[in-house]
Amino acid sequence: MPLTPDQLAEIDQLQQETRPTSRPTVPALETMLFRPLPVLDHGFVRVVDYMGDDAAIVQAARVSYGRGTRKVSEDAGLIRYLMRHRHSTPFEMCEIKYHVKLPIFVARQWIRHRMASVNEYSARYSILDREFYVPEKRHLAAQSASNRQGRGEVLDGEAAEAVLSLLREDAARCYDHYTLMLDESDAEAAGGEAGRGGYGLARELARMNLTLNTYTQWYWKSDLHNLLNFLALRLDSHAQYEIRVYAEAMLDTVRAWVPTAAAAFEEYRRGAFTFSASMLAVLRRMLAGEKVGQPESGLSKREWAELMAAVGQG
Amino acid sequence: MPLTPDQLAEIDQLQQETRPTSRPTVPALETMLFRPLPVLDHGFVRVVDYMGDDAAIVQAARVSYGRGTRKVSEDAGLIRYLMRHRHSTPFEMCEIKYHVKLPIFVARQWIRHRMASVNEYSARYSILDREFYVPEKRHLAAQSASNRQGRGEVLDGEAAEAVLSLLREDAARCYDHYTLMLDESDAEAAGGEAGRGGYGLARELARMNLTLNTYTQWYWKSDLHNLLNFLALRLDSHAQYEIRVYAEAMLDTVRAWVPTAAAAFEEYRRGAFTFSASMLAVLRRMLAGEKVGQPESGLSKREWAELMAAVGQG
Amino acid sequence: MPLTPDQLAEIDQLQQETRPTSRPTVPALETMLFRPLPVLDHGFVRVVDYMGDDAAIVQAARVSYGRGTRKVSEDAGLIRYLMRHRHSTPFEMCEIKYHVKLPIFVARQWIRHRMASVNEYSARYSILDREFYVPEKRHLAAQSASNRQGRGEVLDGEAAEAVLSLLREDAARCYDHYTLMLDESDAEAAGGEAGRGGYGLARELARMNLTLNTYTQWYWKSDLHNLLNFLALRLDSHAQYEIRVYAEAMLDTVRAWVPTAAAAFEEYRRGAFTFSASMLAVLRRMLAGEKVGQPESGLSKREWAELMAAVGQG
Amino acid sequence: MPLTPDQLAEIDQLQQETRPTSRPTVPALETMLFRPLPVLDHGFVRVVDYMGDDAAIVQAARVSYGRGTRKVSEDAGLIRYLMRHRHSTPFEMCEIKYHVKLPIFVARQWIRHRMASVNEYSARYSILDREFYVPEKRHLAAQSASNRQGRGEVLDGEAAEAVLSLLREDAARCYDHYTLMLDESDAEAAGGEAGRGGYGLARELARMNLTLNTYTQWYWKSDLHNLLNFLALRLDSHAQYEIRVYAEAMLDTVRAWVPTAAAAFEEYRRGAFTFSASMLAVLRRMLAGEKVGQPESGLSKREWAELMAAVGQG
Repeated sequence: MPLTPDQLAEIDQLQQETRPTSRPTVPALETMLFRPLPVLDHGFVRVVDYMGDDAAIVQAARVSYGRGTRKVSEDAGLIRYLMRHRHSTPFEMCEIKYHVKLPIFVARQWIRHRMASVNEYSARYSILDREFYVPEKRHLAAQSASNRQGRGEVLDGEAAEAVLSLLREDAARCYDHYTLMLDESDAEAAGGEAGRGGYGLARELARMNLTLNTYTQWYWKSDLHNLLNFLALRLDSHAQYEIRVYAEAMLDTVRAWVPTAAAAFEEYRRGAFTFSASMLAVLRRMLAGEKVGQPESGLSKREWAELMAAVGQG
Repeated sequence: MPLTPDQLAEIDQLQQETRPTSRPTVPALETMLFRPLPVLDHGFVRVVDYMGDDAAIVQAARVSYGRGTRKVSEDAGLIRYLMRHRHSTPFEMCEIKYHVKLPIFVARQWIRHRMASVNEYSARYSILDREFYVPEKRHLAAQSASNRQGRGEVLDGEAAEAVLSLLREDAARCYDHYTLMLDESDAEAAGGEAGRGGYGLARELARMNLTLNTYTQWYWKSDLHNLLNFLALRLDSHAQYEIRVYAEAMLDTVRAWVPTAAAAFEEYRRGAFTFSASMLAVLRRMLAGEKVGQPESGLSKREWAELMAAVGQG
Repeated sequence: MPLTPDQLAEIDQLQQETRPTSRPTVPALETMLFRPLPVLDHGFVRVVDYMGDDAAIVQAARVSYGRGTRKVSEDAGLIRYLMRHRHSTPFEMCEIKYHVKLPIFVARQWIRHRMASVNEYSARYSILDREFYVPEKRHLAAQSASNRQGRGEVLDGEAAEAVLSLLREDAARCYDHYTLMLDESDAEAAGGEAGRGGYGLARELARMNLTLNTYTQWYWKSDLHNLLNFLALRLDSHAQYEIRVYAEAMLDTVRAWVPTAAAAFEEYRRGAFTFSASMLAVLRRMLAGEKVGQPESGLSKREWAELMAAVGQG
Repeated sequence: MPLTPDQLAEIDQLQQETRPTSRPTVPALETMLFRPLPVLDHGFVRVVDYMGDDAAIVQAARVSYGRGTRKVSEDAGLIRYLMRHRHSTPFEMCEIKYHVKLPIFVARQWIRHRMASVNEYSARYSILDREFYVPEKRHLAAQSASNRQGRGEVLDGEAAEAVLSLLREDAARCYDHYTLMLDESDAEAAGGEAGRGGYGLARELARMNLTLNTYTQWYWKSDLHNLLNFLALRLDSHAQYEIRVYAEAMLDTVRAWVPTAAAAFEEYRRGAFTFSASMLAVLRRMLAGEKVGQPESGLSKREWAELMAAVGQG
């Protein structure tokens, strides 16, 4: 359980305390505010603030004075147009801020998205919690034979047990030694036994003994355009499962927040497929009634397979 | 008057319509929301949305779960510490969105600040208003003799009149020809006489006939950190007057929004002065009682003048 | 003619002076270095420096120690793979720097690409040249009837003459008044008659009298990834002609510089088309032999037209 | 030893193979090209490419056509002026690319500098080397009593030995289990015993068992302006030792590359000190002959101490 009962009670209270504002508000997102959406075994994502709504995208695209008097259907049409033609700046006019708890190896992928603001919990300054990610058995997959950076079959029971033991024991031992290296009071604060520890090592050094599945946390803020870029990449079937589940939880918040933009994203980004010049040429031949196979297509086997999958003949 | 009575009435109404939110709100900024702060002869700045407050800076710096239970004085201390040591990421956690009307030559300076989101009114798509900036006489300054990119004395009356006539007539003629180049209905929409015009030229071409003091407008959104960078540069006495007045209006909104951060900005950025290594060496000699003049200081004349000004002996 | 004979002679000399380097060099681009490629009536683009080559993309993608010993065909395969899957960071490892002379209204579109470094000639500090863009007659197009931000038919001869006269006269008069507002020596430096002028107005103010077709110039530096984004947008048939011709000149330099990446860009970006989820559904029906028209496609008329054009049935 | 003899031989050869170029070259940096500068126990920094020199800064600031005919002293004056007034864009016109080997916990600090391009060795795709950072005894410092994110005294011999044993053993065990989780051939490739291993776990999962002192590597490219920001922060005495040593090695490369800009950086950034508004007020009183102590200064104790240190009275 990532949050304590006290923290959850504080969150309940924060959500019930409302204040009046003239800014755009989104009731569906207000009900999600502050509440952690659980991800993996100890992680979460929670929305801590937001700015703008679907109408704000339209208002910026039109550089209008008021909130606009157009019909909802016209607004939706404009949002779809903007998404389709990759007019990205109006989507930058909405902003959202998350508090995320996540394993360090996931954080290392995530941070590659540079167009966002981040404040991470500092292990130079503070002591990390004794929490590390251990996958569920059904996610313990073998190296893919066909894709050098993917997963294949799930490990069999015995191998899975062995791997889980190693992961659990190594993370626990490394964490215990981490607290042992810290000074006495830090060690106790981190849940170590009294009188056991510690060498008084600086926190900024002791942390290097932790394993990459240790959880960290951060505040992460992004505009909607860059968030959708993040989601497009991290919702993809080739993204690592452990970051994809964060993206899925965040997509739920986006649907509540800007439903029209979220639907346009599904239509024009997530559900879309880009045909290369050569693929388009093949397509034209096929639509003209020609029977085309991979060898005479001019496409590589992989591109051919992607094309077939996209047109539902895979 | 940059806004019509209808627009102002709509703004009044927007501000009076409040909705409940659990997000941080800043009453002092709520009362400013949507209202245009006049700048120059036809320009304005108005806040159209914001996210976060002073406490949000602190909350992100601490990566905390709730809104925090520390005392206001502790929060202020932390904000001052962050500003002093240029820990910029917590200030990125606050965001503000403006609608701005400004002359094109000012827009060209402004847009150099890349870390912001912009949607500008499109003169490819729409027709610009018949509004151009003409300086007040007291701002019609001569080229500075000492500073190649500054202003000196105010022009005398006759020269000022002559310059104003040129500016007014050229802008008006160019605008009239702009509408003449457009097609009939565009010309009328832009206030041209019926039956006068037009050649039907594409808007994206006709616009090139406008002068650089024509007003444009945009939505501009920035986080607080980058906004303060903008203000530090554009509030400076060396900034061009025509952009400085926008920065001053925006500083007022920042004071209403995040008063603690704004005070820290005055103390550690705007009112601060950076001594170079050589200036520090001179200062040490002076504090040790030595009488130091420019020639033996090792500083250039300009650096010496800046040092003297900073220590109140200029 | 945008450059003087002296400048051209200096450029020749610069190009002939070579020095040895161990860095990657691209002979085909070396021969283009410094030479202005003419664009529009007074503009140009010229490459003033570059860093990296096709192999540098591969080297970064592999984080390799040496220049690599793989075959050229493997490198090309990797570059195509990276482009197809939008793995953008290896393309960021190549960098190019241009010197560009361009009309101000083009500069205002161009600067919207924020991920680049820019140093523009300062009209606060210096005096702009007496050069303004006047379109060729065949580019004087009417406003498009179907596309609110596009061009339609070319203007007829009389209208075209009238428009050209207005453009020429207004730009010339505004420029002459600009120099008249400046002081005597500035006016003469700018080619004004001796003894005619000036009022001594600060340059930062006088410039506001110039029209938007006045030429400015800048140094513009970008990595290859962001340059390709710029080109994808600005080579598009919907881009304004006056910026598209700059993009075309730059594409020539990219082809000389990184031929493999340039070919992959043509295949996977420029010649590609993205099918939305609904378009893919229509395509599947068509490939299954169903006769589908716009009404029963679920697509808007515009999307249907785009789909038909993409599959060569437009 | 971070590089193999074969790799070093290849580097020697790369450096000796020169090609002619008309681009600016910097002989002092050419001799450093490709050569690893050792950092920590297994890390390094090496320059793999660069673009521009001191003159390129000047050329961009002046938007000049040629390389310029001004005197070296004028160029130096301009570079100093630009640095002093934080005119950052001309410094963006120089670019440098490094290949770096560094512990993961250092990489996590480093990556926070967003204005750079990075390609990291992928542990989803490849197997990391069996190399982890173990500090030298003299760097095993205790947590600072006065500074929550700093180091204090060096640990005594016994504590140091105990800590080093833990670091070494935990990193080794975790790495061995990492290879054991991988499949047979990966385990052998990583130096495991034949026939020992492996469970065939996907690489993207197995890596989570590694400790944060495991070495990773990346290509990192930055412009000079952002590199100097990086150096200003990471050369600071409050930066963690393990990243400071990388910054120091990089500063050496900057001195070879752009000596004038590097000297200006030392004068106006690294050796400089910013006085807050209140500090300036105190300074004026002191220069006027008043005896001021901390209590009557209005400064906090920490700010007072910083002021005294800056004026050499600490």
